Parts: sequence; C-alpha cells; structure tokens
Amino acid sequence: MKKVEVITRPEVFKELRDNLFSIGIGGMTVTEAAGSGKQKGVEGLFRGTTFEIRVLPKLKIEMVIDDEKVEEVVEVIQRTCNTGSVGDGKIFIIPVEEAIRIRTGEHGKEAII
Amino acid sequence: MKKVEVITRPEVFKELRDNLFSIGIGGMTVTEAAGSGKQKGVEGLFRGTTFEIRVLPKLKIEMVIDDEKVEEVVEVIQRTCNTGSVGDGKIFIIPVEEAIRIRTGEHGKEAII
Amino acid sequence: MKKVEVITRPEVFKELRDNLFSIGIGGMTVTEAAGSGKQKGVEGLFRGTTFEIRVLPKLKIEMVIDDEKVEEVVEVIQRTCNTGSVGDGKIFIIPVEEAIRIRTGEHGKEAII
Ligand SMILES: Nc1ncnc2c1ncn2[C@@H]1O[C@H](COP(=O)(O)OP(=O)(O)OP(=O)(O)O)[C@@H](O)[C@H]1O
Ligand SMILES: Nc1ncnc2c1ncn2[C@@H]1O[C@H](COP(=O)(O)OP(=O)(O)OP(=O)(O)O)[C@@H](O)[C@H]1O
Ligand SMILES: Nc1ncnc2c1ncn2[C@@H]1O[C@H](COP(=O)(O)OP(=O)(O)OP(=O)(O)O)[C@@H](O)[C@H]1O
Ligand SMILES: [Mg+2]
Ligand SMILES: [Mg+2]
Ligand SMILES: [Mg+2]
Repeated sequence: MKKVEVITRPEVFKELRDNLFSIGIGGMTVTEAAGSGKQKGVEGLFRGTTFEIRVLPKLKIEMVIDDEKVEEVVEVIQRTCNTGSVGDGKIFIIPVEEAIRIRTGEHGKEAII
Repeated sequence: MKKVEVITRPEVFKELRDNLFSIGIGGMTVTEAAGSGKQKGVEGLFRGTTFEIRVLPKLKIEMVIDDEKVEEVVEVIQRTCNTGSVGDGKIFIIPVEEAIRIRTGEHGKEAII
Repeated sequence: MKKVEVITRPEVFKELRDNLFSIGIGGMTVTEAAGSGKQKGVEGLFRGTTFEIRVLPKLKIEMVIDDEKVEEVVEVIQRTCNTGSVGDGKIFIIPVEEAIRIRTGEHGKEAII
C-alpha cells in the first residue's frame, strides 16, 4: 500500500474529492496547512538569484491506496489540480506497511476498500 | 521504528491518550482533520451501488514508536476506539528511518522513549 | 527522497524557515498541531515514576528532500530549534518513493528542487 499526499489549492478540493471517489478511492483525510515554496516569477528572474518566500493556505489531502491504484490516482490528481499556474502543488508517494479498519479489525487491502 | 497514524473520532481522544501513555508511549502529535469516507449505511444498502460522501471532523493522532511496540499499540487503539459503529476510523503503519530528540541530539530508540 | 518531519515550538518557525531556504530547500508544508509528551521536569524527579502529561501547541513542518540533503537539513534544524529546554521537539525521517510537481509533471529530484 501507498499513502498519496497531495498539497494543493483549497479551491480545487471538491472536484478532486469527487473525481477520486469516482475512481473508487475508499476514503481520504484532509488537513489545513500553510505552504512555503520558492516562487520564481517575474521578480525572481529580474533579481537573478533572489526569490520571494510566501506562506499560502493549502490543503493537504492524504489517502492510503493499493499499489496498483497509484498510477490512476496520480493521473486524476494531475488532471484535476493542474491549472498551469505556479502553485498547483505537489504529490508525494510514501510506503505504508499496514492499514487496519478499527471497527472490524480488517487488515491490508480489505481495510482500505 | 514505525509511525502509527490513527484517524478517529475526536470524542475518544482523551481516553486513547491516557491508554497509550499507560503502556509507555513517549509522545504523540495530534492534528484536526476532515475525513471523507464511503458511508455504507441504511441508505447505501437501500440504493444498492450508490453511497453518500460526508466530510466529518476527525482527529489524526501520530506517534513514532519502536517496532516491538506496534502490536500492543494497535491493540490499545482498537480496544479504545472501536464503538462498533461506522466511522471508528483507521490505523496506518508507516516506516520511519530515524528519530532525533532536538534538545539532546539523541537518535533512534533513545529519541522516542 | 526523504520526508523530514519536525515537531517544534511555533516561536522558532520564521527563523527555521529562513535557515532552511538559505541552504536550498525547495519548499515546506506547515500544520498546526497539539503535542503530548512526557515532561520529566522537577515534578517528575520528585514523584519518581509518575509524570505529567501536557498538550501544547506545536508546529509540524514537513519537507521532502533529496537523500544527500538530509544530514545538512537535520543540522540546521537542531541548531535552530535547540534552546536546551525540554520541549524543543523531534525530527522524524520517513522514506518517500516519488514526488511529482503537479504543474509540470516533473518527477523525483526535479520535482523538489
Ligand atoms: N519539498 C517540499 N516538501 C514539502 N512540501 C512542499 C515542498 N515543495 C512544495 N511543498 C508544498 O507544496 C505547496 C505548493 O508548492 P508549489 O506548487 O508552489 O510547488 P513548486 O515546486 O513551487 O511548483 P510551481 O513551480 O508550480 O509553483 C507549497 O506551498 C508547499 O506547501
Ligand atoms: N483510505 C484512506 N486513506 C486515508 N484516510 C482514510 C482512508 N479511509 C478512511 N480514512 C479516514 O478515516 C476516517 C474514518 O473512516 P471510517 O471509519 O469511516 O472508515 P471506513 O472504512 O468507512 O470504516 P467504517 O465502515 O467503520 O465506517 C475517514 O473520515 C477518513 O478521514
Ligand atoms: N514519539 C513521538 N511520536 C510523535 N510525536 C512525538 C513523539 N514524541 C514527541 N512528539 C511530539 O514532539 C513534541 C515535542 O516533544 P518534546 O520536545 O517534549 O520531546 P521530548 O522527548 O519530551 O524531549 P524533551 O525531553 O526535550 O522535552 C510533542 O509535544 C509531540 O507533539
Ligand atoms: Mg511554487
Ligand atoms: Mg465509514
Ligand atoms: Mg518534552
């Protein structure tokens, strides 16, 4: 299993959630976060090596999925969150060793369906 | 070492925290989150393949522990958070390569005791 | 790639962010969290095996970086966040299998520079 972490614009969340559920994702967890990244826009080019640092409101969306779902999930995220402007965000893939559904005690794939 | 991530009902936090500290957990970090999952309740059964998507307030509780503690920690979480109703939540186990206590520079097991 | 998770005092964030960007970190994500840890201070020593549990406001700062950057990043975090008092916090290192910049589709190192 893998955890897919998406850090992206809050505006896109509802569409992303719907698109992810429509390909069969079992659940997701969302946290409000503040993001800091290098913003190499007009100013950055003008000033050479300098850059501006901004802290912006972002959503962090986490979902644990089966390995064989990763490619499709990444495609859906890219398609949904890519506006072409800087700040569309990042996707990180992290290994997950076990998942357990607390109510039933189901493990692994069964826990995340 | 492993990171145990629990996503569960906010109401159960205090009891869970006490139960975890009583088995010797060294610390934990808690974040407010919103959860989206498939809710296959009365409506779901009635409507067949359809399901409702809800976003609900959840707590995400993270603790980094030694490998040999994982089984006991999972048992305590299941025992404490299992109400038998849908929405009791999930446990995810993620590998951790290193832990460092900032104040002392201690690494590994020493950092999480 | 690795994810470096720092849980530390909110007061230190601005200095930490500046110090991390000055060694070339590409970005970071910050979440408000509540921390619970064993506080083995004056009371703890006095009472022997007992300890106090406190929940304190903490920041969780996450950054995905290249493997070869980890040592330097950890040094900067320790130097910046170490006040010598209990509660300076923890650093956790977690493996990351893939990173993707949503805007461009870049993968791996290219996505986190
Ligand atoms: N290396 C990183 N580790 C953790 N979080 C990051 C990292 N880089 C960026 N982020 C998070 O992702 C958010 C969005 O990043 P952003 O889209 O600006 O990335 P970028 O690489 O600058 O891409 P772009 O050039 O499209 O702006 C940031 O605000 C931050 O929260
Ligand atoms: N695959 C997943 N990845 C990440 N977070 C998840 C995932 N599935 C569920 N969650 C989180 O766990 C919370 C609780 O899930 P929930 O208990 O409803 O799981 P469930 O599988 O629907 O189990 P139940 O049938 O007992 O309701 C969700 O609100 C969401 O925050
Ligand atoms: N094992 C752990 N897993 C996850 N988070 C932890 C863990 N231990 C501590 N934390 C988080 O780190 C925060 C700071 O911990 P703290 O600095 O008090 O660690 P400590 O081990 O008690 O070190 P010190 O002796 O310097 O106080 C805690 O409030 C909690 O959010
Ligand atoms: Mg950017
Ligand atoms: Mg449910
Ligand atoms: Mg402490």
